[in-house]
Amino acid sequence: MKESRRSWLKGAGQMVAASTIGGLAVAASRDAVHATSKPENPTDIPWSYKKLDPDTVGERGYGSYYKGGCCFGAFDAIVGELQREVGAPYTAIPTSMMVYGEGGVAGNSTLCGALNGAAAAMFLVTGGLAKEKKGPAFALIRELFSWYEQEPLPDFRPAKPKFEIRPSVARVPLCHVSVSAWCKATGSKAFSPERAERCGWLTASVAKHAVELLNAQADGKFKAAHTLPAAAATCRTCHDQGSALENTRASMECGGCHFTGRQEHSKL
Amino acid sequence: MKESRRSWLKGAGQMVAASTIGGLAVAASRDAVHATSKPENPTDIPWSYKKLDPDTVGERGYGSYYKGGCCFGAFDAIVGELQREVGAPYTAIPTSMMVYGEGGVAGNSTLCGALNGAAAAMFLVTGGLAKEKKGPAFALIRELFSWYEQEPLPDFRPAKPKFEIRPSVARVPLCHVSVSAWCKATGSKAFSPERAERCGWLTASVAKHAVELLNAQADGKFKAAHTLPAAAATCRTCHDQGSALENTRASMECGGCHFTGRQEHSKL
Repeated sequence: MKESRRSWLKGAGQMVAASTIGGLAVAASRDAVHATSKPENPTDIPWSYKKLDPDTVGERGYGSYYKGGCCFGAFDAIVGELQREVGAPYTAIPTSMMVYGEGGVAGNSTLCGALNGAAAAMFLVTGGLAKEKKGPAFALIRELFSWYEQEPLPDFRPAKPKFEIRPSVARVPLCHVSVSAWCKATGSKAFSPERAERCGWLTASVAKHAVELLNAQADGKFKAAHTLPAAAATCRTCHDQGSALENTRASMECGGCHFTGRQEHSKL
Repeated sequence: MKESRRSWLKGAGQMVAASTIGGLAVAASRDAVHATSKPENPTDIPWSYKKLDPDTVGERGYGSYYKGGCCFGAFDAIVGELQREVGAPYTAIPTSMMVYGEGGVAGNSTLCGALNGAAAAMFLVTGGLAKEKKGPAFALIRELFSWYEQEPLPDFRPAKPKFEIRPSVARVPLCHVSVSAWCKATGSKAFSPERAERCGWLTASVAKHAVELLNAQADGKFKAAHTLPAAAATCRTCHDQGSALENTRASMECGGCHFTGRQEHSKL
């Protein structure tokens, strides 16, 4: 018996007392068949990934956005579909924890919640504590972030939208910057129902693209398609690792926030 | 039998097949006693919170930072201690999923990973999909974010530090801004081992304060101690909900990024 299998049995044993009465186990559900055929230690990752249909995930993301916000929406679109397609251990994860990321975490408008939720789901099925697992998972997530910064989004139209939504380019993965860019591009207000709908489409778009990346990786065909803009690469020559200043760290596009409008760089 | 109990049994049943052989259940562990006495549906939140010792959580956060980064560090400091103190359902959660938030999510330097991981843990033990659960949980998380923006941090010194670390005020909950503020205040480099140590202390500080807030809420004594700076409140009069422009959304301090250095506001 492998260590992971043994550990999983120990973990499952922690839950068994409440599901047995007088020594009789509760009848195994359809999902339990998966648990038997695909034993996994629920605390170890990555969990087994089964390729999902991107459009199904997108549609679910749109619906889940209206249930629990952007972060929950994207996470539930992916993990909820894996609950349906794979069963355990996905069925035991508290997906509603991810509501916390709504509106850039509890409305703080920092990181876009759709990216936050999708990144967590992507890491769950590809990552791990060990460097050799973490690196490839981070590469997938970084590609999702760069795609979000550079592409006109949302690019997923749900089957039954409340409004028609035009896209914009966020340039930055932050909630309030992304919202402001869309408000500027469309003339809509930040707290309008149209903006909420836009974030629903965006949640769907992010979840769908995350699954496209996961599917590509599952096929051994993942390759990053978006690189850092040349202007940001120039910033790095003075501010990034090994540079003269080395006074910050980032892999996002600097120009989405810095030196916009009338702000100028200090004299070099 | 309450619905939540029934749902939990169904969920637990999904894991029972692999933990029984010929109908014999695996012997219940110490944690299973908790599962019996405190039945919970693992997919429903909030999970039962037991008040934790803030210093123990801080010390664990420091150690976990060096195992899996800032986001995992803060999450594991809280949820790992609840695994130890409470047992199931905490013992089944894949804490290593939270490695994804390292360095502002996969090194993207967006949201501080310690805040991201702590916020997820706080929501797990206080929040929910329903508005009446979400609101109070968001208030706790917002207080953590405002504290992070305004206080000199880190303020937790581990028992066996690698270096002595001086604090700085981040003003913004973003990874790269927080790092740059600390580099400026101390003259240290962004990729130095001292900066890594600073983020270890910061992970510990954030996890510790998150637990102080959770403990206060458990005692019915939580009250937000940090309010939005007056300057940011002024920004909101033109840019926030119901204003003339209404072109963004945020609850963080605007001045941490905007109109710093030589950048000026356009003519009003």
